[in-house]
Amino acid sequence: MEGVAIIGAGQTKYGDYPNKGVKELFAEAYFEMLQSVDQGLEPQQIQAAYIGCLSAGSGFQLGQLAPLLMGHVGLPSVNAVRIENACGSGGYSLHTAACAVASGKYDLVIAAGVEKMRDVSSSKGRYWLGVSGDTEYERLAGSTFAGIYALMAARYMHDFGMQREHLSMVAVKNHRNAVANPKAQFRKEITMEQALKGVPVAHPFNVWDCSPTTDGAAVVLLCNAKLAKSFTDKPVYLRGFGAASDYLAIHDRNSITSLAATQKAAAEAYKQAGVGPRDIDFAEVHDCFTIAEIMAYGDLGFCKVGQGHKLLEEGYTRPDGKLPVNASGGLKAKGHPIGATGCGMAVEIFKQLRDEAKEPSRQIKNARFALSHNVGGSGGTAAVFVYQRGD
Amino acid sequence: MEGVAIIGAGQTKYGDYPNKGVKELFAEAYFEMLQSVDQGLEPQQIQAAYIGCLSAGSGFQLGQLAPLLMGHVGLPSVNAVRIENACGSGGYSLHTAACAVASGKYDLVIAAGVEKMRDVSSSKGRYWLGVSGDTEYERLAGSTFAGIYALMAARYMHDFGMQREHLSMVAVKNHRNAVANPKAQFRKEITMEQALKGVPVAHPFNVWDCSPTTDGAAVVLLCNAKLAKSFTDKPVYLRGFGAASDYLAIHDRNSITSLAATQKAAAEAYKQAGVGPRDIDFAEVHDCFTIAEIMAYGDLGFCKVGQGHKLLEEGYTRPDGKLPVNASGGLKAKGHPIGATGCGMAVEIFKQLRDEAKEPSRQIKNARFALSHNVGGSGGTAAVFVYQRGD
Repeated sequence: MEGVAIIGAGQTKYGDYPNKGVKELFAEAYFEMLQSVDQGLEPQQIQAAYIGCLSAGSGFQLGQLAPLLMGHVGLPSVNAVRIENACGSGGYSLHTAACAVASGKYDLVIAAGVEKMRDVSSSKGRYWLGVSGDTEYERLAGSTFAGIYALMAARYMHDFGMQREHLSMVAVKNHRNAVANPKAQFRKEITMEQALKGVPVAHPFNVWDCSPTTDGAAVVLLCNAKLAKSFTDKPVYLRGFGAASDYLAIHDRNSITSLAATQKAAAEAYKQAGVGPRDIDFAEVHDCFTIAEIMAYGDLGFCKVGQGHKLLEEGYTRPDGKLPVNASGGLKAKGHPIGATGCGMAVEIFKQLRDEAKEPSRQIKNARFALSHNVGGSGGTAAVFVYQRGD
Repeated sequence: MEGVAIIGAGQTKYGDYPNKGVKELFAEAYFEMLQSVDQGLEPQQIQAAYIGCLSAGSGFQLGQLAPLLMGHVGLPSVNAVRIENACGSGGYSLHTAACAVASGKYDLVIAAGVEKMRDVSSSKGRYWLGVSGDTEYERLAGSTFAGIYALMAARYMHDFGMQREHLSMVAVKNHRNAVANPKAQFRKEITMEQALKGVPVAHPFNVWDCSPTTDGAAVVLLCNAKLAKSFTDKPVYLRGFGAASDYLAIHDRNSITSLAATQKAAAEAYKQAGVGPRDIDFAEVHDCFTIAEIMAYGDLGFCKVGQGHKLLEEGYTRPDGKLPVNASGGLKAKGHPIGATGCGMAVEIFKQLRDEAKEPSRQIKNARFALSHNVGGSGGTAAVFVYQRGD
């Protein structure tokens, strides 16, 4: 199994782009990635591209989005394929690309994601926001993405004594983190009072518990680890990559206060990397709703399952804490352009581990290992990655 | 790079299933695959599943189709992900799965595809049949899948002296081949006279030049080649797997009488396998329209580009010819359930190379190497595979 390194990364600012299509967003992220390769790169050296997108079927390009995008940036003949696992599509494009490099078949491969949620969020919004789960048993019965996570939050409160305030702590922390991130959609602090009193969405959630509707793209360039140093003195190694699934319909699961897919994917990534949760210096986790970040703490081994809210009380996951989580602002405030999200996490980690977080106030210091965690829907799938600083 | 073998394969009969959904079709193919593993298999040994589907976004399951299907057959926790490249989705699921096994990360991986074209072919039919190409420059301008291939056929006739009759030779051959295939959608011979006088579709095509609307599923089980003999005495080795793209819009291409994506994918597969076109004993190629098979002959190196129609005159690709092509009946008569098609070719080849084609009349004798060729849309993507008999 060949080693895998990341040698370039780029992304659009996440946000609302009424006048740009997926081609423009992808190109912007792609060319930023190209520019980030320290020793330069002939684009023709790129051999394959795995591109995550959920909503491509819904009107703007029905099939073959991946070669369309690669043709648009001048690489029409590479092996290009679309990868889809709902909100986990970006993480799965990264996982699939990592396997391709690990095989030795390809040396230079793109993992990317793109989404224009604006284009599927008007009358079709309700339709798409049901993608979290099982169409037959959840969506057609009226469940929404927010509603399903709200059930998880309510149960977590019941089982583990979590309070409403703990959910808001996630929102307040992540919004504060996004202020210094030039790529974030919402660079705006919110107070605890605001976070507690937002417009109700699905009990116990209000609007501040929910990630926004976001357009954006993210691209990372993977390389056979043996060749990484010929492109940069500061590669970031992808030491572990795990992916696992669960039943889509939450009535089929053993528990709704933790995600079995995350637990299995994390165990696999840690094992491959030869490290454990205690070795992780910072993490980007999937906080599509505030409860999701709290569950992730336990499922990723940062604390015991059911004790996630306690970490927030201690400030453990704040930028000045022992293990900063979502220093980027997370899905909550950096934004959540579905197919791009999992790759955008890798872009953030690439920059942080190279001391290139731009705004000095948000640079995480002396980090060696980082983790990213991307979830599909309500936990039907999860991909977890362990990264190591390479300089 | 680890070697890759196929140790099991199953598929539904291709056809029209008004009373079955994607779950039922997938399960039928999956359990046939399980039963085909000679020494048996504990399903829990399966670690990952790459599942091709185009139309999943269009109503029945919006996201995460792959874990939904794997949960349905009792394997909810495997790494499962949807792969999409239009009509090439099945070939790309096979290619992606092959990379995953070649990496050494997984030993037992499913490559599969499923499609219910019936569910997207009523009022939405026109919408989906535009997936062949570029939405902005082709579909929204009124181009259909048939129309684009018809342009290619007309140009091929102009440039190379091909006659209308040559197109019909493909239809007659493939319909005749399907008669003995219990998995085929149309097990019905047609005469040359019929083939020439079908209902017009897009000049020079009539209805007999076009593949049908098909429901179906196909599943193959890939295994690290080192372990293959513990599951069967007759593995089929996947010696080469290539994939490449081209501009989606045909106005951007250098030629419309050959597919550059096929040529590049084939070169890669032959190189990896260490064989050439002359070593191939039979092939399953992508005949979504009759011209597509004729172009494939040249692009795959079975003859010079532009001479494909001559092979038909010689009977070279008939079952009794030097290189039988689409002995299954091909997309034309076996059927074309989009996401399943590329995997269904692998199912056919697996059976043929194990002398298990069931109907003795259709068993290809003494074959050692075979090839499959799956195209996305009008040649925006192509995946090519070289298989070797393993007993």
